[in-house]
Amino acid sequence: MPGLRGPSDYSQEPPRHPSLRINSKEPFNAEPPRSALISSYITPVDLFYKRNHGPIPLVDDIESYYVTVNGLIENPRKLFMKDIRALQKYNVTATLQCAGNRRTAMSKVRKVRGVGWDVSAIGNAVWGGAKLSDVLELVGIAKLMHSTESGGRHVEFVSVDQCKEENGGPYKASIPLSQATNPEADVLLAYEMNGEPLNRDHGYPLRVVVPGVIGARSVKWLDSINIIAEECQGFFMQKDYKMFPPSVNWDNINWSTRRPQMDFPVQSAICSLEDVEMVKPGKVNIRGYAAAGGGRGIERVDVSADGGKSWVEASRSQKPKETYISEHHSTDKWAWVFFEASLDVSRTTEIAAKAVDSGANVQPECVESIWNLRGILNTSWHRVLLRLGHSSL
Amino acid sequence: MPGLRGPSDYSQEPPRHPSLRINSKEPFNAEPPRSALISSYITPVDLFYKRNHGPIPLVDDIESYYVTVNGLIENPRKLFMKDIRALQKYNVTATLQCAGNRRTAMSKVRKVRGVGWDVSAIGNAVWGGAKLSDVLELVGIAKLMHSTESGGRHVEFVSVDQCKEENGGPYKASIPLSQATNPEADVLLAYEMNGEPLNRDHGYPLRVVVPGVIGARSVKWLDSINIIAEECQGFFMQKDYKMFPPSVNWDNINWSTRRPQMDFPVQSAICSLEDVEMVKPGKVNIRGYAAAGGGRGIERVDVSADGGKSWVEASRSQKPKETYISEHHSTDKWAWVFFEASLDVSRTTEIAAKAVDSGANVQPECVESIWNLRGILNTSWHRVLLRLGHSSL
Repeated sequence: MPGLRGPSDYSQEPPRHPSLRINSKEPFNAEPPRSALISSYITPVDLFYKRNHGPIPLVDDIESYYVTVNGLIENPRKLFMKDIRALQKYNVTATLQCAGNRRTAMSKVRKVRGVGWDVSAIGNAVWGGAKLSDVLELVGIAKLMHSTESGGRHVEFVSVDQCKEENGGPYKASIPLSQATNPEADVLLAYEMNGEPLNRDHGYPLRVVVPGVIGARSVKWLDSINIIAEECQGFFMQKDYKMFPPSVNWDNINWSTRRPQMDFPVQSAICSLEDVEMVKPGKVNIRGYAAAGGGRGIERVDVSADGGKSWVEASRSQKPKETYISEHHSTDKWAWVFFEASLDVSRTTEIAAKAVDSGANVQPECVESIWNLRGILNTSWHRVLLRLGHSSL
Repeated sequence: MPGLRGPSDYSQEPPRHPSLRINSKEPFNAEPPRSALISSYITPVDLFYKRNHGPIPLVDDIESYYVTVNGLIENPRKLFMKDIRALQKYNVTATLQCAGNRRTAMSKVRKVRGVGWDVSAIGNAVWGGAKLSDVLELVGIAKLMHSTESGGRHVEFVSVDQCKEENGGPYKASIPLSQATNPEADVLLAYEMNGEPLNRDHGYPLRVVVPGVIGARSVKWLDSINIIAEECQGFFMQKDYKMFPPSVNWDNINWSTRRPQMDFPVQSAICSLEDVEMVKPGKVNIRGYAAAGGGRGIERVDVSADGGKSWVEASRSQKPKETYISEHHSTDKWAWVFFEASLDVSRTTEIAAKAVDSGANVQPECVESIWNLRGILNTSWHRVLLRLGHSSL
């Protein structure tokens, strides 16, 4: 393996921040506390959620590391880091969200399979790297390959990790060639996160970032890129991360009836409060995040102090100017927004939040109507219970 | 006025199909019965909903009719029909939906302003014409003007009708230049509908069709196209068709706080049954339509025979092959889908339908949470009441 390799055991894991809540130790899956998540508009690298399916790969020799570009192209090629770095560098602020974010709450209604997550399997970072459309142009694939011209082809990303679900093979995923060759889709081969080189947990030395799409398509520790005639047939594309209706269970499931989930729907969560909080009567400050997939952007966030009977509009916290965002940074369409509101609470009550995207799509009221056996994309109104009490309790 | 003019009274209205349900006579606003709407995947022209803000314009002389292209371009130009027809012709199957579709049901919760509509202010047609991106290229504006390059410019469409809301001036609207110059956005200057020349009600001789966007931006009876620095300041962009939260009323509204609505959210409606139907015990056939804005497509439709407590997945009716769709027709991403399901009914009950789009966006359960003073985009679960009875009743 050129420079980069995926270990078969967990003896060489990187250090992690002690405040992370560990949802699975091996492979390592963890998320920050709610309050830490909203303490910074750009999520610090060490607090960004960690989502893995095997031991973390290692770079033995960065000089000899390369990505193979293969498949349906005339001239397969090896791209070394210097080739990637020679391309125009872009910084894209993009929110990545695990499809399993808020799965724990879905499981409370009816048990689902998968790693449990609270509301913090999401983070917002400035990703620096080359645009995939430039990389593909370098190997002879024209930009803006429209859906009709692309002939239904896809671009597959293959990692070097060893996943149980792939019988020890690597994690892989694909996106349509039309998206991959569209510069406006901002798909990156990223080598930086928040202005620093990627760390091992987040895909060092090179990873894919597909903005607006569930995190599962942003493959880390990239080993090869394949131009293929059909979408990737890997486990995580075909036997996972598909959206089923509530009526499908593990006895009647037919995976081939659904397409792999790509865009995520409009989402929001309150992060200034835990699921159940004891408060004193008076003003309660509500803060959280909202994000929409597909670059659709958040139109507004509503919050309720009476379980959803009446609503007030939250204000949008101004995002801080990030000094290390400079060259070729132009859009915030892939990024979350922070919201806040101050609500009067005089009795034990349920607080709820829901967001609206630019297409007027909304979050559903109840988790029951979107329940699915894999527990993906719980975007139901986020609710927390405020119990009135005294500080002495 | 060159060839085309907007009358000031209703003495020259075109003939209309007698089965249309008239929601407003002058201006003429009407929709087909539910059962007629789903009798054809391609909506017949005479049954397609009619949405107007003034008397229907008239063409006196098609030879002298032209569209002016003006504003922020070097060489303003007049385009005659022969110029438009000389460009590559495209047929795009696209569903147009009035933002006010299903407004009547929203008004039942709390009164809203606007023309009342049942569930048929929507239709699906094959629009034939030139792509706006080709038209703009003809006047010197490059294709694929990305959002950064376009400098926030917009393309404004101005009609020739006389609207009360514009104090007798014409209807107008705009879309971003980045969308207008993108061939994949399929924005058309259409002169045909379902293989025939446009009729007067639908914009003869030339109209805009903006797929995936609320019908209000698809300007009919086109008089001029203006390249402008900011979005159109017309009434229907700035003082109408904006999405407000339930907390905003006519006393506290501030129009400038919202952007004009463009994409519409995921929608569905049952059309084989009226709001309240008397049925005999046994199988009841449920049929209807589902559509998603922004080209996102429908992933599935669920129906419930117990008011939303349990759901079964509806099947998608195969759309018929349309023989007049031929040249350069390649996508159904802008078109609705028809669904059907057979449900066992043994007691008086509520039937509900809800759709999921490819981004896993869903329809909200209740109209209360999306209520807005203008009554736009009621996409709550569509519900009908089945009363059990005997045929003699």
